[in-house]
Amino acid sequence: MSMNKPLILITNDDGHEAQGIEVLTRLMMEIGDVVVVAPDGPRSAQSNALTVTHPIRFKKIEEKEGLTRYTTSGTPTDCVKLALNEIVDRIPDMVVAGINHGSNSAINVIYSGTMGAVLEGCENGILSIGFSICDHSLSTDFSNFEPFVTKIALSALKNGLPHATCLNVNAPCGKIKGIKVARQCDGRWTKEFAKRMDPHGKAYYWLTGNFENYEPEAEDTDEWALNHGFVSIVPTTIDLTAYDSIQEIENWKF
Amino acid sequence: MSMNKPLILITNDDGHEAQGIEVLTRLMMEIGDVVVVAPDGPRSAQSNALTVTHPIRFKKIEEKEGLTRYTTSGTPTDCVKLALNEIVDRIPDMVVAGINHGSNSAINVIYSGTMGAVLEGCENGILSIGFSICDHSLSTDFSNFEPFVTKIALSALKNGLPHATCLNVNAPCGKIKGIKVARQCDGRWTKEFAKRMDPHGKAYYWLTGNFENYEPEAEDTDEWALNHGFVSIVPTTIDLTAYDSIQEIENWKF
Repeated sequence: MSMNKPLILITNDDGHEAQGIEVLTRLMMEIGDVVVVAPDGPRSAQSNALTVTHPIRFKKIEEKEGLTRYTTSGTPTDCVKLALNEIVDRIPDMVVAGINHGSNSAINVIYSGTMGAVLEGCENGILSIGFSICDHSLSTDFSNFEPFVTKIALSALKNGLPHATCLNVNAPCGKIKGIKVARQCDGRWTKEFAKRMDPHGKAYYWLTGNFENYEPEAEDTDEWALNHGFVSIVPTTIDLTAYDSIQEIENWKF
Repeated sequence: MSMNKPLILITNDDGHEAQGIEVLTRLMMEIGDVVVVAPDGPRSAQSNALTVTHPIRFKKIEEKEGLTRYTTSGTPTDCVKLALNEIVDRIPDMVVAGINHGSNSAINVIYSGTMGAVLEGCENGILSIGFSICDHSLSTDFSNFEPFVTKIALSALKNGLPHATCLNVNAPCGKIKGIKVARQCDGRWTKEFAKRMDPHGKAYYWLTGNFENYEPEAEDTDEWALNHGFVSIVPTTIDLTAYDSIQEIENWKF
Protein backbone atom coordinates (compact mmCIF):
# COMPACT_ATOMS: atom_id res chain seq x y z
CA MET A 1 0.00 0.00 0.00
CA SER A 2 1.11 3.53 -0.74
CA MET A 3 2.37 5.32 2.39
CA ASN A 4 1.12 8.78 1.43
CA LYS A 5 -2.54 7.83 1.23
CA PRO A 6 -4.49 7.53 4.47
CA LEU A 7 -5.15 4.00 5.66
CA ILE A 8 -8.85 3.51 6.38
CA LEU A 9 -10.21 0.57 8.38
CA ILE A 10 -13.84 -0.30 7.67
CA THR A 11 -16.22 -2.55 9.57
CA ASN A 12 -19.95 -2.81 10.21
CA ASP A 13 -22.53 -4.84 12.10
CA ASP A 14 -24.72 -5.94 9.20
CA GLY A 15 -21.99 -8.29 7.94
CA HIS A 16 -19.53 -8.09 5.07
CA GLU A 17 -22.15 -8.75 2.39
CA ALA A 18 -24.44 -5.85 3.34
CA GLN A 19 -25.05 -3.15 0.76
CA GLY A 20 -24.08 -0.43 3.25
CA ILE A 21 -20.50 -1.62 3.66
CA GLU A 22 -20.12 -1.99 -0.11
CA VAL A 23 -21.12 1.65 -0.56
CA LEU A 24 -18.84 2.80 2.27
CA THR A 25 -15.92 0.83 0.85
CA ARG A 26 -16.38 2.34 -2.60
CA LEU A 27 -16.49 5.87 -1.13
CA MET A 28 -13.47 5.37 1.13
CA MET A 29 -11.37 3.93 -1.73
CA GLU A 30 -11.58 7.40 -3.31
CA ILE A 31 -9.93 8.81 -0.15
CA GLY A 32 -7.35 6.23 0.87
CA ASP A 33 -6.15 2.66 1.04
CA VAL A 34 -8.88 0.52 2.53
CA VAL A 35 -8.81 -2.53 4.78
CA VAL A 36 -12.21 -4.06 5.48
CA VAL A 37 -12.45 -6.34 8.53
CA ALA A 38 -16.11 -7.21 8.89
CA PRO A 39 -18.24 -9.86 10.56
CA ASP A 40 -18.98 -12.94 8.44
CA GLY A 41 -22.72 -12.39 8.99
CA PRO A 42 -25.17 -10.02 10.70
CA ARG A 43 -24.21 -8.76 14.18
CA SER A 44 -26.83 -6.08 14.75
CA ALA A 45 -27.35 -4.65 18.25
CA GLN A 46 -24.10 -6.18 19.48
CA SER A 47 -23.06 -2.94 21.18
CA ASN A 48 -19.45 -3.30 22.41
CA ALA A 49 -19.87 -7.06 22.97
CA LEU A 50 -16.68 -9.09 22.91
CA THR A 51 -16.21 -12.77 22.15
CA VAL A 52 -14.71 -14.25 25.31
CA THR A 53 -16.17 -17.74 25.73
CA HIS A 54 -14.71 -19.10 22.49
CA PRO A 55 -11.88 -18.12 20.16
CA ILE A 56 -12.23 -16.03 17.01
CA ARG A 57 -10.93 -16.57 13.50
CA PHE A 58 -10.42 -14.31 10.51
CA LYS A 59 -9.65 -14.90 6.85
CA LYS A 60 -8.65 -12.80 3.86
CA ILE A 61 -11.35 -12.90 1.20
CA GLU A 62 -10.06 -10.32 -1.31
CA GLU A 63 -6.90 -8.39 -2.12
CA LYS A 64 -6.50 -5.87 -4.89
CA GLU A 65 -4.94 -2.43 -5.46
CA GLY A 66 -6.13 -0.16 -2.63
CA LEU A 67 -8.40 -2.73 -0.96
CA THR A 68 -7.95 -5.79 1.24
CA ARG A 69 -10.97 -7.49 2.76
CA TYR A 70 -11.21 -9.89 5.68
CA THR A 71 -14.11 -11.55 7.44
CA THR A 72 -14.14 -12.58 11.10
CA SER A 73 -16.28 -14.82 13.26
CA GLY A 74 -16.53 -12.07 15.89
CA THR A 75 -18.52 -8.99 16.78
CA PRO A 76 -17.90 -5.53 15.26
CA THR A 77 -15.76 -4.60 18.30
CA ASP A 78 -13.81 -7.86 17.90
CA CYS A 79 -13.24 -6.89 14.24
CA VAL A 80 -11.56 -3.61 15.23
CA LYS A 81 -9.48 -5.31 17.94
CA LEU A 82 -8.38 -8.08 15.53
CA ALA A 83 -7.60 -5.56 12.80
CA LEU A 84 -5.44 -3.39 15.05
CA ASN A 85 -3.69 -6.24 16.87
CA GLU A 86 -3.31 -8.90 14.20
CA ILE A 87 -4.08 -7.63 10.71
CA VAL A 88 -2.88 -4.13 9.76
CA ASP A 89 0.85 -3.36 9.74
CA ARG A 90 0.43 0.33 10.57
CA ILE A 91 -2.11 2.23 12.65
CA PRO A 92 -5.06 3.26 10.48
CA ASP A 93 -5.63 6.99 10.02
CA MET A 94 -9.35 6.45 10.38
CA VAL A 95 -11.87 3.79 11.42
CA VAL A 96 -15.25 4.04 9.71
CA ALA A 97 -18.21 1.76 10.36
CA GLY A 98 -21.44 1.22 8.44
CA ILE A 99 -23.21 2.35 6.49
CA ASN A 100 -25.66 0.86 8.95
CA HIS A 101 -29.09 -0.16 7.71
CA GLY A 102 -31.13 1.62 10.41
CA SER A 103 -30.59 4.74 12.49
CA ASN A 104 -28.20 4.82 15.43
CA SER A 105 -29.45 8.15 16.73
CA ALA A 106 -30.52 8.90 20.31
CA ILE A 107 -30.15 6.04 22.83
CA ASN A 108 -29.53 3.56 19.98
CA VAL A 109 -25.88 4.55 20.25
CA ILE A 110 -25.52 2.26 23.28
CA TYR A 111 -26.94 -0.82 21.51
CA SER A 112 -25.38 -0.37 18.09
CA GLY A 113 -22.68 -2.76 16.93
CA THR A 114 -21.67 -0.12 14.38
CA MET A 115 -21.11 2.46 17.10
CA GLY A 116 -19.46 -0.23 19.27
CA ALA A 117 -16.78 -0.54 16.59
CA VAL A 118 -16.46 3.25 16.47
CA LEU A 119 -16.03 3.52 20.25
CA GLU A 120 -13.36 0.82 19.96
CA GLY A 121 -11.45 2.75 17.32
CA CYS A 122 -11.76 5.87 19.48
CA GLU A 123 -10.42 4.03 22.55
CA ASN A 124 -7.35 3.25 20.45
CA GLY A 125 -6.79 6.92 19.68
CA ILE A 126 -7.92 6.65 16.05
CA LEU A 127 -10.25 9.10 14.31
CA SER A 128 -13.49 7.07 14.20
CA ILE A 129 -16.84 7.67 12.54
CA GLY A 130 -20.05 5.64 12.37
CA PHE A 131 -22.42 6.16 9.43
CA SER A 132 -26.05 5.00 9.52
CA ILE A 133 -29.20 5.64 7.53
CA CYS A 134 -32.83 5.64 8.71
CA ASP A 135 -33.89 2.77 6.49
CA HIS A 136 -33.77 -0.90 7.43
CA SER A 137 -34.53 -2.22 3.95
CA LEU A 138 -31.87 -4.24 2.21
CA SER A 139 -32.32 -2.21 -0.98
CA THR A 140 -31.72 1.19 0.59
CA ASP A 141 -30.96 4.09 -1.73
CA PHE A 142 -27.73 5.55 -0.38
CA SER A 143 -27.19 8.00 -3.25
CA ASN A 144 -28.37 11.14 -1.42
CA PHE A 145 -26.18 10.31 1.57
CA GLU A 146 -23.02 9.43 -0.38
CA PRO A 147 -21.63 12.96 -0.94
CA PHE A 148 -22.17 13.72 2.77
CA VAL A 149 -20.27 10.60 3.82
CA THR A 150 -17.32 11.68 1.69
CA LYS A 151 -17.47 15.30 2.88
CA ILE A 152 -17.66 14.36 6.55
CA ALA A 153 -14.83 11.83 6.28
CA LEU A 154 -12.59 14.36 4.50
CA SER A 155 -13.39 17.11 7.03
CA ALA A 156 -12.64 14.74 9.91
CA LEU A 157 -9.30 13.71 8.36
CA LYS A 158 -8.40 17.37 7.85
CA ASN A 159 -9.54 18.68 11.26
CA GLY A 160 -9.07 15.69 13.56
CA LEU A 161 -11.10 15.12 16.70
CA PRO A 162 -10.36 15.72 20.38
CA HIS A 163 -9.09 12.85 22.55
CA ALA A 164 -11.75 10.24 23.42
CA THR A 165 -14.21 11.74 20.92
CA CYS A 166 -15.70 10.10 17.82
CA LEU A 167 -18.62 10.86 15.51
CA ASN A 168 -22.07 9.31 15.22
CA VAL A 169 -23.43 10.30 11.80
CA ASN A 170 -27.01 9.48 10.80
CA ALA A 171 -28.91 10.22 7.59
CA PRO A 172 -32.64 10.64 7.00
CA CYS A 173 -34.35 8.72 4.26
CA GLY A 174 -34.96 10.61 1.04
CA LYS A 175 -33.74 14.10 0.19
CA ILE A 176 -31.16 15.72 2.47
CA LYS A 177 -31.30 19.43 3.32
CA GLY A 178 -27.85 19.67 4.92
CA ILE A 179 -25.90 18.81 8.05
CA LYS A 180 -26.74 19.56 11.70
CA VAL A 181 -24.21 19.03 14.48
CA ALA A 182 -26.43 17.81 17.29
CA ARG A 183 -26.62 16.22 20.71
CA GLN A 184 -27.97 12.75 21.53
CA CYS A 185 -31.76 13.03 21.90
CA ASP A 186 -33.22 12.02 25.26
CA GLY A 187 -35.71 9.15 25.18
CA ARG A 188 -36.19 5.44 25.63
CA TRP A 189 -37.60 2.30 24.04
CA THR A 190 -41.05 1.08 25.15
CA LYS A 191 -43.38 -1.87 24.42
CA GLU A 192 -40.39 -3.92 23.57
CA PHE A 193 -41.54 -7.47 23.05
CA ALA A 194 -43.86 -9.38 20.74
CA LYS A 195 -45.06 -12.52 22.52
CA ARG A 196 -45.56 -15.73 20.53
CA MET A 197 -46.55 -19.26 21.53
CA ASP A 198 -44.64 -22.29 20.33
CA PRO A 199 -46.51 -25.49 19.26
CA HIS A 200 -45.97 -26.84 22.80
CA GLY A 201 -47.84 -23.92 24.37
CA LYS A 202 -44.76 -22.17 25.73
CA ALA A 203 -44.18 -18.45 25.30
CA TYR A 204 -41.24 -16.86 23.54
CA TYR A 205 -40.48 -13.19 22.94
CA TRP A 206 -39.16 -11.22 19.97
CA LEU A 207 -37.49 -7.90 20.63
CA THR A 208 -39.31 -5.03 18.95
CA GLY A 209 -40.53 -1.72 20.44
CA ASN A 210 -41.18 1.98 19.89
CA PHE A 211 -38.82 4.85 20.55
CA GLU A 212 -40.33 7.43 22.89
CA ASN A 213 -38.76 10.83 22.24
CA TYR A 214 -38.77 12.84 25.49
CA GLU A 215 -38.04 16.13 23.76
CA PRO A 216 -39.61 16.22 20.28
CA GLU A 217 -39.63 20.03 20.24
CA ALA A 218 -35.92 20.51 21.00
CA GLU A 219 -34.19 21.63 17.80
CA ASP A 220 -30.63 20.70 18.81
CA THR A 221 -31.06 16.89 18.92
CA ASP A 222 -30.15 14.21 16.40
CA GLU A 223 -33.78 13.07 16.24
CA TRP A 224 -34.93 16.57 15.33
CA ALA A 225 -32.30 16.83 12.60
CA LEU A 226 -33.28 13.46 11.09
CA ASN A 227 -37.01 14.18 11.31
CA HIS A 228 -36.44 17.47 9.47
CA GLY A 229 -34.35 16.10 6.60
CA PHE A 230 -30.84 16.78 7.91
CA VAL A 231 -27.83 14.52 8.39
CA SER A 232 -27.02 14.57 12.14
CA ILE A 233 -23.48 14.51 13.49
CA VAL A 234 -23.24 13.82 17.22
CA PRO A 235 -19.75 14.15 18.71
CA THR A 236 -19.67 11.12 20.99
CA THR A 237 -17.38 10.34 23.91
CA ILE A 238 -16.08 7.12 25.43
CA ASP A 239 -15.82 8.82 28.83
CA LEU A 240 -19.18 8.00 30.43
CA THR A 241 -18.46 9.90 33.65
CA ALA A 242 -21.39 12.11 34.71
CA TYR A 243 -19.06 14.88 35.88
CA ASP A 244 -21.88 17.11 37.13
CA SER A 245 -22.87 14.45 39.67
CA ILE A 246 -19.48 13.84 41.30
CA GLN A 247 -19.87 16.65 43.84
CA GLU A 248 -23.45 15.66 44.63
CA ILE A 249 -22.55 12.05 45.39
CA GLU A 250 -19.53 13.12 47.44
CA ASN A 251 -22.07 14.84 49.70
CA TRP A 252 -23.97 11.61 50.40
CA LYS A 253 -23.44 10.41 53.95
CA PHE A 254 -22.32 6.82 53.59
CA MET B 1 -45.20 -8.48 47.73
CA SER B 2 -45.50 -5.79 50.33
CA MET B 3 -46.16 -2.36 48.79
CA ASN B 4 -44.20 -0.36 51.35
CA LYS B 5 -40.87 -2.07 50.76
CA PRO B 6 -38.82 -1.00 47.77
CA LEU B 7 -38.90 -3.38 44.81
CA ILE B 8 -35.39 -4.24 43.69
CA LEU B 9 -34.61 -5.85 40.33
CA ILE B 10 -31.34 -7.77 40.20
CA THR B 11 -29.42 -9.11 37.23
CA ASN B 12 -25.81 -9.85 36.29
CA ASP B 13 -23.65 -11.06 33.44
CA ASP B 14 -21.98 -14.04 35.13
CA GLY B 15 -25.25 -15.98 35.10
CA HIS B 16 -27.80 -16.80 37.79
CA GLU B 17 -25.59 -19.39 39.50
CA ALA B 18 -22.63 -17.06 40.12
CA GLN B 19 -21.60 -16.41 43.69
CA GLY B 20 -21.72 -12.63 43.13
CA ILE B 21 -25.45 -12.56 42.40
CA GLU B 22 -26.18 -14.80 45.39
CA VAL B 23 -24.39 -12.32 47.66
CA LEU B 24 -26.13 -9.34 46.07
CA THR B 25 -29.54 -11.03 46.38
CA ARG B 26 -28.96 -11.78 50.08
CA LEU B 27 -27.95 -8.15 50.73
CA MET B 28 -30.83 -6.63 48.78
CA MET B 29 -33.40 -8.86 50.55
CA GLU B 30 -32.50 -6.94 53.72
CA ILE B 31 -33.56 -3.73 51.96
CA GLY B 32 -36.59 -4.68 49.88
CA ASP B 33 -38.57 -7.18 47.88
CA VAL B 34 -36.30 -8.73 45.30
CA VAL B 35 -36.93 -9.98 41.77
CA VAL B 36 -33.94 -11.62 40.12
CA VAL B 37 -34.02 -11.87 36.32
CA ALA B 38 -30.65 -13.23 35.31
CA PRO B 39 -29.08 -14.97 32.31
CA ASP B 40 -29.22 -18.78 32.39
CA GLY B 41 -25.43 -18.90 31.96
CA PRO B 42 -22.38 -16.62 31.65
CA ARG B 43 -22.77 -13.51 29.46
CA SER B 44 -19.57 -11.64 30.25
CA ALA B 45 -18.49 -8.71 28.05
CA GLN B 46 -21.92 -8.53 26.42
CA SER B 47 -22.07 -4.76 26.81
CA ASN B 48 -25.56 -3.54 25.83
CA ALA B 49 -25.98 -6.37 23.32
CA LEU B 50 -29.56 -7.32 22.48
CA THR B 51 -30.92 -10.59 21.16
CA VAL B 52 -32.49 -9.73 17.81
CA THR B 53 -31.85 -12.67 15.48
CA HIS B 54 -33.80 -15.17 17.55
CA PRO B 55 -36.49 -14.99 20.23
CA ILE B 56 -35.88 -15.07 23.99
CA ARG B 57 -37.51 -17.11 26.74
CA PHE B 58 -37.69 -16.78 30.49
CA LYS B 59 -38.84 -19.05 33.29
CA LYS B 60 -39.53 -18.74 37.00
CA ILE B 61 -37.12 -20.90 39.01
CA GLU B 62 -37.93 -19.86 42.58
CA GLU B 63 -40.61 -17.99 44.52
CA LYS B 64 -40.61 -17.35 48.24
CA GLU B 65 -41.35 -14.52 50.67
CA GLY B 66 -39.48 -11.43 49.43
CA LEU B 67 -37.77 -13.15 46.51
CA THR B 68 -38.76 -14.32 43.04
CA ARG B 69 -36.13 -15.58 40.65
CA TYR B 70 -36.24 -16.00 36.87
CA THR B 71 -33.69 -17.05 34.30
CA THR B 72 -33.64 -15.92 30.68
CA SER B 73 -31.94 -17.06 27.52
CA GLY B 74 -30.88 -13.48 26.77
CA THR B 75 -28.17 -10.96 27.55
CA PRO B 76 -28.08 -8.84 30.74
CA THR B 77 -29.73 -5.96 28.83
CA ASP B 78 -32.40 -8.36 27.55
CA CYS B 79 -32.99 -9.41 31.18
CA VAL B 80 -33.78 -5.84 32.23
CA LYS B 81 -36.02 -5.28 29.20
CA LEU B 82 -37.88 -8.56 29.79
CA ALA B 83 -38.25 -7.82 33.49
CA LEU B 84 -39.68 -4.33 32.92
CA ASN B 85 -41.92 -5.25 29.98
CA GLU B 86 -43.10 -8.77 30.81
CA ILE B 87 -42.31 -9.79 34.38
CA VAL B 88 -42.71 -7.20 37.15
CA ASP B 89 -46.15 -5.72 37.84
CA ARG B 90 -44.83 -2.38 39.10
CA ILE B 91 -41.79 -0.31 38.20
CA PRO B 92 -38.83 -1.33 40.38
CA ASP B 93 -37.44 1.29 42.75
CA MET B 94 -33.93 0.19 41.88
CA VAL B 95 -32.04 -1.98 39.41
CA VAL B 96 -28.82 -3.49 40.74
CA ALA B 97 -26.43 -5.66 38.77
CA GLY B 98 -23.57 -7.88 39.87
CA ILE B 99 -21.70 -8.43 41.98
CA ASN B 100 -19.50 -8.88 38.95
CA HIS B 101 -16.50 -11.17 39.20
CA GLY B 102 -13.91 -8.75 37.77
CA SER B 103 -13.59 -4.98 37.72
CA ASN B 104 -15.68 -2.77 35.47
CA SER B 105 -13.59 0.33 36.09
CA ALA B 106 -12.15 2.63 33.42
CA ILE B 107 -12.99 1.75 29.79
CA ASN B 108 -14.37 -1.64 30.88
CA VAL B 109 -17.66 0.15 31.44
CA ILE B 110 -18.32 0.02 27.69
CA TYR B 111 -17.79 -3.76 27.41
CA SER B 112 -19.43 -4.87 30.64
CA GLY B 113 -22.68 -6.82 30.51
CA THR B 114 -23.23 -5.82 34.13
CA MET B 115 -23.00 -2.14 33.29
CA GLY B 116 -25.06 -2.76 30.13
CA ALA B 117 -27.92 -3.83 32.40
CA VAL B 118 -27.35 -0.76 34.55
CA LEU B 119 -27.45 1.62 31.57
CA GLU B 120 -30.70 -0.13 30.53
CA GLY B 121 -32.28 0.47 33.95
CA CYS B 122 -31.10 4.08 33.78
CA GLU B 123 -32.61 4.56 30.30
CA ASN B 124 -35.92 3.51 31.85
CA GLY B 125 -35.66 6.20 34.52
CA ILE B 126 -34.90 3.76 37.33
CA LEU B 127 -32.18 4.25 39.96
CA SER B 128 -29.53 1.80 38.75
CA ILE B 129 -26.24 0.61 40.22
CA GLY B 130 -23.62 -1.87 39.05
CA PHE B 131 -21.40 -3.59 41.61
CA SER B 132 -18.13 -5.31 40.67
CA ILE B 133 -15.07 -6.61 42.48
CA CYS B 134 -11.45 -6.80 41.23
CA ASP B 135 -11.24 -10.58 41.47
CA HIS B 136 -12.13 -13.00 38.71
CA SER B 137 -11.93 -16.12 40.84
CA LEU B 138 -15.11 -18.09 41.42
CA SER B 139 -14.42 -18.28 45.16
CA THR B 140 -14.12 -14.54 45.72
CA ASP B 141 -14.35 -13.26 49.29
CA PHE B 142 -17.07 -10.60 49.16
CA SER B 143 -17.21 -10.06 52.93
CA ASN B 144 -15.22 -6.80 53.01
CA PHE B 145 -17.33 -5.35 50.21
CA GLU B 146 -20.74 -6.37 51.58
CA PRO B 147 -21.29 -3.50 54.05
CA PHE B 148 -20.34 -1.01 51.32
CA VAL B 149 -22.84 -2.53 48.87
CA THR B 150 -25.59 -2.11 51.46
CA LYS B 151 -24.51 1.43 52.40
CA ILE B 152 -24.30 2.60 48.79
CA ALA B 153 -27.67 1.06 47.86
CA LEU B 154 -29.38 2.67 50.87
CA SER B 155 -27.78 6.05 50.16
CA ALA B 156 -28.86 5.88 46.53
CA LEU B 157 -32.44 4.99 47.49
CA LYS B 158 -32.50 7.89 49.95
CA ASN B 159 -30.86 10.52 47.73
CA GLY B 160 -31.84 9.45 44.23
CA LEU B 161 -29.79 10.22 41.14
CA PRO B 162 -30.11 12.86 38.43
CA HIS B 163 -31.85 12.02 35.15
CA ALA B 164 -29.82 9.74 32.83
CA THR B 165 -27.27 9.04 35.56
CA CYS B 166 -26.42 5.70 37.18
CA LEU B 167 -23.56 4.38 39.32
CA ASN B 168 -20.61 2.17 38.48
CA VAL B 169 -19.28 0.81 41.80
CA ASN B 170 -16.07 -1.23 41.96
CA ALA B 171 -14.29 -2.81 44.92
CA PRO B 172 -10.61 -3.63 45.38
CA CYS B 173 -9.58 -7.08 46.54
CA GLY B 174 -8.77 -7.42 50.21
CA LYS B 175 -9.22 -4.77 52.88
CA ILE B 176 -11.17 -1.64 52.03
CA LYS B 177 -10.12 1.80 53.30
CA GLY B 178 -13.30 3.65 52.34
CA ILE B 179 -15.17 5.10 49.37
CA LYS B 180 -13.93 7.48 46.65
CA VAL B 181 -16.31 9.14 44.22
CA ALA B 182 -14.25 9.16 41.04
CA ARG B 183 -14.19 9.68 37.31
CA GLN B 184 -13.63 7.00 34.66
CA CYS B 185 -9.88 6.55 34.22
CA ASP B 186 -8.45 7.20 30.77
CA GLY B 187 -6.71 4.26 29.11
CA ARG B 188 -7.07 1.38 26.69
CA TRP B 189 -6.54 -2.35 26.23
CA THR B 190 -3.40 -3.52 24.40
CA LYS B 191 -1.86 -6.84 23.26
CA GLU B 192 -5.30 -8.26 23.07
CA PHE B 193 -5.03 -11.69 21.50
CA ALA B 194 -3.39 -15.00 22.24
CA LYS B 195 -2.83 -16.86 18.97
CA ARG B 196 -3.22 -20.66 18.87
CA MET B 197 -3.00 -23.19 16.05
CA ASP B 198 -5.63 -25.87 15.56
CA PRO B 199 -4.63 -29.45 14.60
CA HIS B 200 -5.20 -28.53 10.95
CA GLY B 201 -2.63 -25.74 11.07
CA LYS B 202 -5.13 -22.88 11.09
CA ALA B 203 -4.87 -19.96 13.50
CA TYR B 204 -7.46 -18.95 16.04
CA TYR B 205 -7.41 -16.13 18.59
CA TRP B 206 -8.43 -15.84 22.23
CA LEU B 207 -9.24 -12.41 23.59
CA THR B 208 -6.92 -11.43 26.43
CA GLY B 209 -4.87 -8.23 26.89
CA ASN B 210 -3.43 -5.67 29.29
CA PHE B 211 -5.01 -2.45 30.46
CA GLU B 212 -2.77 0.54 29.78
CA ASN B 213 -3.56 3.31 32.27
CA TYR B 214 -2.87 6.70 30.62
CA GLU B 215 -2.92 8.60 33.91
CA PRO B 216 -1.63 6.41 36.77
CA GLU B 217 -0.73 9.49 38.85
CA ALA B 218 -4.16 11.13 38.73
CA GLU B 219 -5.81 10.72 42.14
CA ASP B 220 -9.39 11.33 41.04
CA THR B 221 -9.87 8.23 38.86
CA ASP B 222 -11.55 4.91 39.59
CA GLU B 223 -8.30 3.05 38.86
CA TRP B 224 -6.43 5.13 41.44
CA ALA B 225 -9.11 4.46 44.05
CA LEU B 226 -9.05 0.70 43.42
CA ASN B 227 -5.25 0.53 43.38
CA HIS B 228 -5.16 2.33 46.73
CA GLY B 229 -7.71 0.17 48.54
CA PHE B 230 -10.86 2.24 48.05
CA VAL B 231 -14.27 1.37 46.65
CA SER B 232 -14.79 3.60 43.58
CA ILE B 233 -18.14 5.12 42.64
CA VAL B 234 -18.28 6.64 39.17
CA PRO B 235 -21.49 8.51 38.35
CA THR B 236 -22.12 7.32 34.80
CA THR B 237 -24.31 8.79 32.08
CA ILE B 238 -26.21 7.29 29.16
CA ASP B 239 -25.82 10.58 27.25
CA LEU B 240 -22.65 10.00 25.23
CA THR B 241 -22.68 13.45 23.60
CA ALA B 242 -19.27 15.13 23.71
CA TYR B 243 -20.79 18.54 24.39
CA ASP B 244 -17.45 20.37 24.34
CA SER B 245 -16.94 19.35 20.70
CA ILE B 246 -20.26 20.52 19.25
CA GLN B 247 -19.05 24.07 18.60
CA GLU B 248 -15.74 22.88 17.15
CA ILE B 249 -17.42 20.58 14.63
CA GLU B 250 -19.95 23.26 13.69
CA ASN B 251 -16.91 25.26 12.54
CA TRP B 252 -15.78 22.58 10.09
CA LYS B 253 -16.31 23.64 6.48
CA PHE B 254 -18.24 20.77 4.93
